[in-house]
Amino acid sequence: MTRKAYVGVVGAGLATEAELELAAGVGRLIAEAGAVLVCGGLGGVMDAAARACKEAGGVSLGVLPGDDRLAASRHLTMAVATGMGEARNAIVARTADVLIAVGGEYGTLSEIAFALKMGKPVVGLSTWDLAREELGDPIVRAETPVEAVTKALNLI
Amino acid sequence: MTRKAYVGVVGAGLATEAELELAAGVGRLIAEAGAVLVCGGLGGVMDAAARACKEAGGVSLGVLPGDDRLAASRHLTMAVATGMGEARNAIVARTADVLIAVGGEYGTLSEIAFALKMGKPVVGLSTWDLAREELGDPIVRAETPVEAVTKALNLI
Amino acid sequence: MTRKAYVGVVGAGLATEAELELAAGVGRLIAEAGAVLVCGGLGGVMDAAARACKEAGGVSLGVLPGDDRLAASRHLTMAVATGMGEARNAIVARTADVLIAVGGEYGTLSEIAFALKMGKPVVGLSTWDLAREELGDPIVRAETPVEAVTKALNLI
Amino acid sequence: MTRKAYVGVVGAGLATEAELELAAGVGRLIAEAGAVLVCGGLGGVMDAAARACKEAGGVSLGVLPGDDRLAASRHLTMAVATGMGEARNAIVARTADVLIAVGGEYGTLSEIAFALKMGKPVVGLSTWDLAREELGDPIVRAETPVEAVTKALNLI
Repeated sequence: MTRKAYVGVVGAGLATEAELELAAGVGRLIAEAGAVLVCGGLGGVMDAAARACKEAGGVSLGVLPGDDRLAASRHLTMAVATGMGEARNAIVARTADVLIAVGGEYGTLSEIAFALKMGKPVVGLSTWDLAREELGDPIVRAETPVEAVTKALNLI
Repeated sequence: MTRKAYVGVVGAGLATEAELELAAGVGRLIAEAGAVLVCGGLGGVMDAAARACKEAGGVSLGVLPGDDRLAASRHLTMAVATGMGEARNAIVARTADVLIAVGGEYGTLSEIAFALKMGKPVVGLSTWDLAREELGDPIVRAETPVEAVTKALNLI
Repeated sequence: MTRKAYVGVVGAGLATEAELELAAGVGRLIAEAGAVLVCGGLGGVMDAAARACKEAGGVSLGVLPGDDRLAASRHLTMAVATGMGEARNAIVARTADVLIAVGGEYGTLSEIAFALKMGKPVVGLSTWDLAREELGDPIVRAETPVEAVTKALNLI
Repeated sequence: MTRKAYVGVVGAGLATEAELELAAGVGRLIAEAGAVLVCGGLGGVMDAAARACKEAGGVSLGVLPGDDRLAASRHLTMAVATGMGEARNAIVARTADVLIAVGGEYGTLSEIAFALKMGKPVVGLSTWDLAREELGDPIVRAETPVEAVTKALNLI
């Protein structure tokens, strides 16, 4: 299964209802595509995506900031306790082949930045605007979970 | 599955035939016990344990030192690319509930040291001798894979 | 000296002339203020700031991504070899009391994101625009090195 | 100063009087040799070495496990807050050119293991016994601080 596509889903631990719904749609579609969902392992967007992934028969991997594996969302297939705090965001970006960012606060922004630094594609659903006049938008925009997952899998 | 027992299997990437056989026995028994096998994700003891685990219908998780998830043993269920080099040994120890050390060189020694520092039990099969007169042996010794896995699961 | 103010200077390894000049101004002023300069330890903005800091009699600390301490800018007072790749950006943000971002690419963006996530102030000189309508601009803007260092020290 | 020799001093945070005295001797001699002392930045052996180093006019660098730079020994010249917990031991080993181990518990053992794994020499003062019949003793033994620092500097 290490040869399957790994799709990272990043977003806030404290998310809006709309973001949770987007995350659930993304998690379900990753499962249906037979890809592996990677996330930061906690609540909000991470938990919503992992739960929908599980309900659709998919598998997921949570990369936790803390020392305690049991702090992970119950819906994950497996979890890693890094004990590295926010630096675990670099591991999420490194392990995924592509990121889908759903909304998101500063932790999400760091994951987007790491993925872009590593040359990996980032698909955004209502997330940070990093467009610059001379360089264009480094994030591939999507309006729906279907569009996001389709674009993400095509970009790998 | 994040609530199952996670058993770390640590040992050299370049291992002897005898060590590979012990590792395979350990991997198979972890699978049969329904636990999750955690390892450093590369060759030698790690690969032998992951392979036997898979063949017995079990699941495993590799925590890689490098940037490339595809460097992982093909027999792992999932892999994490930490990009942290040898510091990933701390993550192996942190993620596991108990370690089984099979033979091993200095990397293995660092994993044993981290687990003991974190207060987690370590079971040893032909591994480092850390006994000190005043403190006794911090490693629980086993002679066979059956003894090692049985003791490991009882120590969690 | 661990009780002095630590001012992080973050920016691209491949920087424009204008950015290098800003970085040098910032490095000099940090030295004159008696603060410690923290950076990622490599070239471009990092090297320009460390060099000007040294020339003004100040001290600096480089937190390197790689394994080799000798890859550090020669102008640093001390260097740490993390061997963690880009994840070292989290350590730069954690060690500094405040960040000054000079221009910058995606690595810089990850450092800004980490600092904001950790609740630390970020002062920007021609850097990323992260303003959002509902939340305002999380980066304190400066037009000159003097303004940047003055604001940074006042924000600690 | 990044081109000077970096000598790591590793040992327990809770140390015996005899160990603290050895550590102080080592710290003083590192200062007198004009080398940089690197340590884990906390109490016990680390603090005793940093203090003696400072009193002899030397410089030192502490690599802390936690988030708070101010938790460092007051006697350090500079400190880095890694926020990575025990995994920071890998950074101590990576940054130093050679380690001197004074007594020590499991954290110290992990630092010794990392240094040996990285091919760096380790000098021991009353520390772990890792000798194995077929391989000999990987640690260079010393009886006094003078012998330890002399051997360490010669081994770089």
